[in-house]
Amino acid sequence: MSSSNKFASVHYAEYLQLDKILSAQSLRSKALGEPAHDEMLFIIIHQVYELWFKQILHELESMMAIFDQPVIDERQIGVASQRTERIIEIQKIMIDQIRVLETMTALDFLEFRNYLIPASGFQSFQFRKVEVMMGLKQGQRITYNQKPYGSVFSDSQMKELENLEAGNSLAQLVGQWLERTPFVKLDAFPFLDQYRKAVEEMITAEREAIQETGYIGEEEKQIRLKMLDGTAEFFQQALSGEQDAPDADETLSQSATLAALFIQLYRDEPILRMPYQLLTRLMDMDELFTTWRFRHAQMVKRMLGKKIGTGGSSGHDYLKNTAEKHEVFRDLHRISTLLIPRSALPPLPEEVKKTLGFYAAH
Amino acid sequence: MSSSNKFASVHYAEYLQLDKILSAQSLRSKALGEPAHDEMLFIIIHQVYELWFKQILHELESMMAIFDQPVIDERQIGVASQRTERIIEIQKIMIDQIRVLETMTALDFLEFRNYLIPASGFQSFQFRKVEVMMGLKQGQRITYNQKPYGSVFSDSQMKELENLEAGNSLAQLVGQWLERTPFVKLDAFPFLDQYRKAVEEMITAEREAIQETGYIGEEEKQIRLKMLDGTAEFFQQALSGEQDAPDADETLSQSATLAALFIQLYRDEPILRMPYQLLTRLMDMDELFTTWRFRHAQMVKRMLGKKIGTGGSSGHDYLKNTAEKHEVFRDLHRISTLLIPRSALPPLPEEVKKTLGFYAAH
Amino acid sequence: MSSSNKFASVHYAEYLQLDKILSAQSLRSKALGEPAHDEMLFIIIHQVYELWFKQILHELESMMAIFDQPVIDERQIGVASQRTERIIEIQKIMIDQIRVLETMTALDFLEFRNYLIPASGFQSFQFRKVEVMMGLKQGQRITYNQKPYGSVFSDSQMKELENLEAGNSLAQLVGQWLERTPFVKLDAFPFLDQYRKAVEEMITAEREAIQETGYIGEEEKQIRLKMLDGTAEFFQQALSGEQDAPDADETLSQSATLAALFIQLYRDEPILRMPYQLLTRLMDMDELFTTWRFRHAQMVKRMLGKKIGTGGSSGHDYLKNTAEKHEVFRDLHRISTLLIPRSALPPLPEEVKKTLGFYAAH
Amino acid sequence: MSSSNKFASVHYAEYLQLDKILSAQSLRSKALGEPAHDEMLFIIIHQVYELWFKQILHELESMMAIFDQPVIDERQIGVASQRTERIIEIQKIMIDQIRVLETMTALDFLEFRNYLIPASGFQSFQFRKVEVMMGLKQGQRITYNQKPYGSVFSDSQMKELENLEAGNSLAQLVGQWLERTPFVKLDAFPFLDQYRKAVEEMITAEREAIQETGYIGEEEKQIRLKMLDGTAEFFQQALSGEQDAPDADETLSQSATLAALFIQLYRDEPILRMPYQLLTRLMDMDELFTTWRFRHAQMVKRMLGKKIGTGGSSGHDYLKNTAEKHEVFRDLHRISTLLIPRSALPPLPEEVKKTLGFYAAH
Repeated sequence: MSSSNKFASVHYAEYLQLDKILSAQSLRSKALGEPAHDEMLFIIIHQVYELWFKQILHELESMMAIFDQPVIDERQIGVASQRTERIIEIQKIMIDQIRVLETMTALDFLEFRNYLIPASGFQSFQFRKVEVMMGLKQGQRITYNQKPYGSVFSDSQMKELENLEAGNSLAQLVGQWLERTPFVKLDAFPFLDQYRKAVEEMITAEREAIQETGYIGEEEKQIRLKMLDGTAEFFQQALSGEQDAPDADETLSQSATLAALFIQLYRDEPILRMPYQLLTRLMDMDELFTTWRFRHAQMVKRMLGKKIGTGGSSGHDYLKNTAEKHEVFRDLHRISTLLIPRSALPPLPEEVKKTLGFYAAH
Repeated sequence: MSSSNKFASVHYAEYLQLDKILSAQSLRSKALGEPAHDEMLFIIIHQVYELWFKQILHELESMMAIFDQPVIDERQIGVASQRTERIIEIQKIMIDQIRVLETMTALDFLEFRNYLIPASGFQSFQFRKVEVMMGLKQGQRITYNQKPYGSVFSDSQMKELENLEAGNSLAQLVGQWLERTPFVKLDAFPFLDQYRKAVEEMITAEREAIQETGYIGEEEKQIRLKMLDGTAEFFQQALSGEQDAPDADETLSQSATLAALFIQLYRDEPILRMPYQLLTRLMDMDELFTTWRFRHAQMVKRMLGKKIGTGGSSGHDYLKNTAEKHEVFRDLHRISTLLIPRSALPPLPEEVKKTLGFYAAH
Repeated sequence: MSSSNKFASVHYAEYLQLDKILSAQSLRSKALGEPAHDEMLFIIIHQVYELWFKQILHELESMMAIFDQPVIDERQIGVASQRTERIIEIQKIMIDQIRVLETMTALDFLEFRNYLIPASGFQSFQFRKVEVMMGLKQGQRITYNQKPYGSVFSDSQMKELENLEAGNSLAQLVGQWLERTPFVKLDAFPFLDQYRKAVEEMITAEREAIQETGYIGEEEKQIRLKMLDGTAEFFQQALSGEQDAPDADETLSQSATLAALFIQLYRDEPILRMPYQLLTRLMDMDELFTTWRFRHAQMVKRMLGKKIGTGGSSGHDYLKNTAEKHEVFRDLHRISTLLIPRSALPPLPEEVKKTLGFYAAH
Repeated sequence: MSSSNKFASVHYAEYLQLDKILSAQSLRSKALGEPAHDEMLFIIIHQVYELWFKQILHELESMMAIFDQPVIDERQIGVASQRTERIIEIQKIMIDQIRVLETMTALDFLEFRNYLIPASGFQSFQFRKVEVMMGLKQGQRITYNQKPYGSVFSDSQMKELENLEAGNSLAQLVGQWLERTPFVKLDAFPFLDQYRKAVEEMITAEREAIQETGYIGEEEKQIRLKMLDGTAEFFQQALSGEQDAPDADETLSQSATLAALFIQLYRDEPILRMPYQLLTRLMDMDELFTTWRFRHAQMVKRMLGKKIGTGGSSGHDYLKNTAEKHEVFRDLHRISTLLIPRSALPPLPEEVKKTLGFYAAH
């Protein structure tokens, strides 16, 4: 290819293929009855969502390619983190965009709703791909009218979803990367032992403080001591080191979870900065999909009340149920429960600190 | 008071009483231990929330004063609607503001969390007032650690909440106003009868269409016919005119509900425009409080994991449960279920249309 | 068409023509060199913008059809107002969406920027149509590299823009509607005379108050008196009733401006509620396009610095200059300057009040 | 201090000093005349702004403490970056919050505006501190009614602002840190020389491509070649290495600018990740203050039209002028102009790459 090709002129409309994009709105109300003014919005906003899904898939694919390597160059963690940042900004738009659709009232929707049956957002192939690539497994899904979610797709689409699900999801790839991080088992710093000890000390100190204080009544004291017992038990179990059979809804192995805990706790160390940021943003992504499903459920309630969605489901309940249940980084969210204050943290030995710093600093 | 007083100079700082506002941040971490950088944010953002609650109360009070009249001047409906618009914009900020708090990580929160016990957002007196004034009743509340929500307040505060709850809430006042609207029983237009007939015709037409179409399989047909039966039954019950014992979670009487339905259906008539807008915005307010509780729950999960809130509750679950359960305009939300397409609406007789129009137009 | 057609099944992907929508992204970097990851975002976000423009045009067209009538049914003012509400929500998304594009850094943009020449947002035909339909006139436009804005379009597109510009814009149609409103010249209430008198009284009272007050120094007094003189002169000129030659940047005639002033002042009267809301939202739309251009300018600065846009212009300066200059409802914005406090308003005679109220209230 | 003190109970209302916060709203309209409903909003929203300013100052102070060190621990760059993230989220709220104030109409404002004279946001001491700490210098300020901005403050406040301005601002401290970064003068990699050569090659290649292409006409060719000459000249001057007298509006020295350029270009290297993120967010902060001023100007126009602000200025023009002029990281914004595509970048020698990586990776 000659370099002059680079300068081949291109017009905005041609570059964006606007002939396709802007000719893809056919009102069924117009074809089959009276044109309904608001059907245009209904079509366009769903097309916009599909464009955003395509962009999210583009980012997810590139993130999965980064993590699907036996050794991951540190430079790539920063790149992956930036990709999550973009997905996050898109998700915020996806959520706010619901306000645009809410300018269509229930009464206006009824003008063309009958023409759409059984089309439904439940048939968005791209969104299912997003869920599967993130790490949502068939068994974890809320079912919708008792039908498997794939039944609305063509055979080739179902095949594609099955293949995706059979392979590693982003959640799994991130888990494997966490398992490989060497930090937790550093020779110079037996993290798990030290952390367990720090937790015990912290709990003992709190117990004494509660018992000695004169500021609160006896009943209150007993409540607090009981709460403390609960916390102690939880820590003990989580840090036991025993590989208990993972709960159905767990996605990270215990060693991956411990690595994530280590990253959270010592995030200020240079080498942990980007991993920490990445983990945080993965949780953001999860949370934002949850919010989107929740807002979507609200919108459906307003639009349809108790009526049944165009796809035949009671959309509100389905969406509301999936909201939090379809999160995939549940174990990362749980890590907060295992944190102790920085001041109670076992300090990193100088030798270890050096290992976690930059070469130039030595 | 002499008119010249009007021009008494006032300085910005004095007008806003910034001496009070800006001296009200005392870090407990500083007083009792090591200053924690992030405690400042924790204090300030909660103060900001309380200022917004004060503003919302100011608007709610003025709205309740408008509706607490035997006869309500039409001019006042527009004013009330504008007040809701302001509350809505504040609620959006309240929701988005959670992002600011989310810049504080779980680890940073742990630095000062112990100093706060048992302070908790659950102790916000103003927010309870907002809920009660909106129309949330004691019996409808999700309980929190089995304790009545009022137990964290002083006697005089509890008294105030009880008095508020004993009086008419905004939801009740709006309900009474709807009951008084004359539209549904207009002599020239027996709305309920006509509407029932329109619904029956619509359902019959749909049934025939389904039976006759060759486009869908037999199984699909049966599913749709069953769905249609469900819809028919629902309409019949709702429009029966029998005053069934209201469900525990209903706030509007049947006649208020029918008035709201009438307003929704014939909203384009000039006299119904502002009432329609008002009802829509009341639902927006409900929905936005729900979203706020939901986002709040997400934030608590991230901050505390499974640990117990500073007030001793498992905050995430409590907040998540209240999210939708604490809505007060549930009956308005349900009206969507009772709508039929504009094209199937019984047309208003000219005589009635005139009644719903402007004087100047005649 | 048989009614059973209504129930012809349609699949989500087919309804949304996703085959077109999702196949319209061809990376030029891939075709002509190395694929640049971020080019996908660049294409998709611009396609999303074009979809939103199409929706805005759909709403503008329907609004113009409403106002392009000799007599406008009051019902239609509410409809038009709802259309503006939708445009406003879309505009907010258009502004926030810039954050998504800002996740692409200048360095990443450079990877494919050369392939785009001379494609540029300046070539968006739909956005030019939006501007022209709103009311932006050729003579009012900031030029861009000294070339007329139409030179980048095909002959048929230029013809279309010329025809649009030759016809009535939304701003002109709204102006004509305002001119026809009868309120200002109501026999029972000579608005202009009374208002002029009210303004004079208000200014006299303020002058006395300033002169008499002992709270401020002599210098301050003189400043305030001078400011008051300026205000007085401005009012006098604006309310003179003389039809001065309209400034180049005026879009409303004086009688339209007075009608808009009347609507602003007596907005609480039922018949003026919806007109008031409509005027407010038209200003919102103007303001939001301004904000969008401003944010767009910021983004271009960040992406390109002082380099020249792909269309050959110094995009930042062009966009920044158009931001406020391209507003079309400038006269509505100016009305704030002509307001006086409600308490100083000439009260409407009972007879007039009746005229502005609902038929049912009599 | 005994440890049991830690568990001294504290109530939410007491902790937040709500007695102060919620008793600081005195309506002047009520004290001096008729209570104006909307004055409450006016007071509360300004108090909220002041609370946010206090939080921003808290973050800025901690950032300045980090950079005001001869040697800065790499761990601290990450901390500083997180502080900017918080400021950014607050700024977004500050901008969106203007919508809340816009629910107050011009007419409603007039009800109490006269009571406020001459109070004005121009008198916000905290906001001036924010500007000065960021790096805005007296000489760079747009004046307001020809009066120095400090004249509205008390002597002690003026003294404080002068001292702040005499010391190092955040912009200066960041500049000094950039000057100290060793990257640009790495022995193994003479960055400036190599970069200059890469730029020359890139420009030569582009010139040839333009001359050889048959796709564009002669006139178009000449325009592009001229644009290219401009670019070449700009690069030559910027990379000359001569320390030209800094323009009045420059805040970074040339060596700091080069360091920032190096960071931008090689951001993927682990050691440059956090510095890159920090610089990006400083630009975000600048941009968001600009947007806030711009939106503030829009709001003032809507509220007051051409009338003069309560502080006696024509607020809209003042605010609009300051919007971009008061940016402090102008040189960072300009760096985009000096970027070349990654593919044309001089590759870092392996030795240098190692230096910019983690110790653990060796």
